[in-house]
Amino acid sequence: MSLLRHDITTNDWVIFAPERARRPHDRESGRASSSPPSGCPFCPGNERLAGPEIYTLRGGTAANSPGWSIRVIPNKFPALRIEDDFRRVEEGPLFRFMGGCGAHEVIIETPQHDRILAQQTPLEIEFVLRTLQLRFNDLLRDLRFQTIVIFKNHGESAGTSLRHPHWQLIATPVVPRTLRIKHAVAEDYFDATGQCLYCVLLHEELAARKRLVAENDHFAAVMPYASRVPFETWILPKAHQSSFGLVEPARFRPLAELLQAVLGKLWTGLDDPDFNLTINTAPRGDEGKEYFLWHIEIVPRLSRPAGFEMGSGMAINTVLPEDAALFLQSVESG
Amino acid sequence: MSLLRHDITTNDWVIFAPERARRPHDRESGRASSSPPSGCPFCPGNERLAGPEIYTLRGGTAANSPGWSIRVIPNKFPALRIEDDFRRVEEGPLFRFMGGCGAHEVIIETPQHDRILAQQTPLEIEFVLRTLQLRFNDLLRDLRFQTIVIFKNHGESAGTSLRHPHWQLIATPVVPRTLRIKHAVAEDYFDATGQCLYCVLLHEELAARKRLVAENDHFAAVMPYASRVPFETWILPKAHQSSFGLVEPARFRPLAELLQAVLGKLWTGLDDPDFNLTINTAPRGDEGKEYFLWHIEIVPRLSRPAGFEMGSGMAINTVLPEDAALFLQSVESG
Repeated sequence: MSLLRHDITTNDWVIFAPERARRPHDRESGRASSSPPSGCPFCPGNERLAGPEIYTLRGGTAANSPGWSIRVIPNKFPALRIEDDFRRVEEGPLFRFMGGCGAHEVIIETPQHDRILAQQTPLEIEFVLRTLQLRFNDLLRDLRFQTIVIFKNHGESAGTSLRHPHWQLIATPVVPRTLRIKHAVAEDYFDATGQCLYCVLLHEELAARKRLVAENDHFAAVMPYASRVPFETWILPKAHQSSFGLVEPARFRPLAELLQAVLGKLWTGLDDPDFNLTINTAPRGDEGKEYFLWHIEIVPRLSRPAGFEMGSGMAINTVLPEDAALFLQSVESG
Repeated sequence: MSLLRHDITTNDWVIFAPERARRPHDRESGRASSSPPSGCPFCPGNERLAGPEIYTLRGGTAANSPGWSIRVIPNKFPALRIEDDFRRVEEGPLFRFMGGCGAHEVIIETPQHDRILAQQTPLEIEFVLRTLQLRFNDLLRDLRFQTIVIFKNHGESAGTSLRHPHWQLIATPVVPRTLRIKHAVAEDYFDATGQCLYCVLLHEELAARKRLVAENDHFAAVMPYASRVPFETWILPKAHQSSFGLVEPARFRPLAELLQAVLGKLWTGLDDPDFNLTINTAPRGDEGKEYFLWHIEIVPRLSRPAGFEMGSGMAINTVLPEDAALFLQSVESG
């Protein structure tokens, strides 16, 4: 059972999930190996090990058996759980906790153990993104969930424990402070200017082109002016849209094409770097508002944050985004 | 030359220091090796490699030669530099940068290559802490510097590039947002209650004792209620004091004793874990105020933050501080 504790010095909440210490790590979580480990819980034939499915795309075979192309399951070592309590409990005047109420799902994006995202076809990626949206919208119907974080860890230094390609989705019963601040900054900008900050930023980047990595009719990939790490890349829609939950079905193909192109460039140019990928979206209830633009953030893990970053929250980046973008512009996407 | 860029989506500043990509990494930065590498720039005899000293404790030998016990030098691959400009420059309505004005010093805490902090005597540690305070107060005299971050990286996963024991000190020309928020939360608490939040927290921990790791007459080591990572430990003074710059000379011995005891317990109990250590202190100009208590934060690097942490800013911790404290209470300090 997990719980959340409130930090009175920062107003952050911290998730305590002791059971996650027991999750298995496969030895090939880093680089490709010649053959998948026989015990990989995400490989076809091992459905039993991973647990019963919440959702699948499959060609007529029975549930929880091979024959699927995408499989969604509850995380076996969840950070948060639907059954847990979500009421705040005071422990004296300084301390406050709540049950670990939430959801933690795993989206196994392919039956093929070594077929990493950058190597998948746009059609495959399109179906993964549609599945993520479907789960996102389904979980949003539970009014206890304040925020749904969609993310992917690729490689050992990005914190992945199993190599078999998968995404994750965590629904939290509180709004994380960092997101609250990000949304508040964007809302202030909207109140001051009447414009969406991210749309204005994208417009500027498309005009300047020096931090642009790739684009198509509907999406653009840019490296932010104040990138926190080398090769940080954002993918943003060219038309205003607050929530990932509202992306129209026809837009998933161009999104998948651009995501594949960007990951392919990173894969080729940086030799399969470890990275984290997150989908940023407007908070519950603000889906129709104008101040925020949903987007994907790709954060390669080429360096390690150290004491200065921990003590100050300030990043030290050794590569200017203009230099990183110039390099990636000329790299083939795999 | 480095520079800082403002992130309009978060109001953070990011330091860009391309030259730091060229800094050397010794191969033994992790575990102890049988003999120090001959080219270690922090070993006696190699003073030339590290550059001219800003300050030393030495027994009568010539400057920049062996015979010292503590040696302070400018970082050879600095994040920020005293000579750089500190004026903000606007690049259109969205982007803003400033020169990399600041300071970046290295405090070589011992001439002995493998004598890590946990193995040093309280007397040795006392002199290191006094040297840190001396450099802190000296740099504070430069009115361009808004914040001085004192930190130590131990081990490869904590981001250290050279094993030879050292601390670092970075003076920044802006107040980092994370620290601004932390100070604002403490100031709000003081305005509401008339008390220092951290003093109240410490009082509570000393009464409850379940998250207490060790203490002496003047300092206590506790694990915070909402620890972000397993075995996060804070050392706080028992009497109110806002700034590290104001610690009285007589207090450095008990501080060194407790720091040695805590690091010794971590070293023994967790088998020499990698960790970051930072000194948190009141912002410039608030040294005499009542709302903040300076303290040391020790953050072991036993796990890696992954996509969820990046996308939400929320930590997932697998060990409750009560369990971690109970374990360390019974461990000898080496």
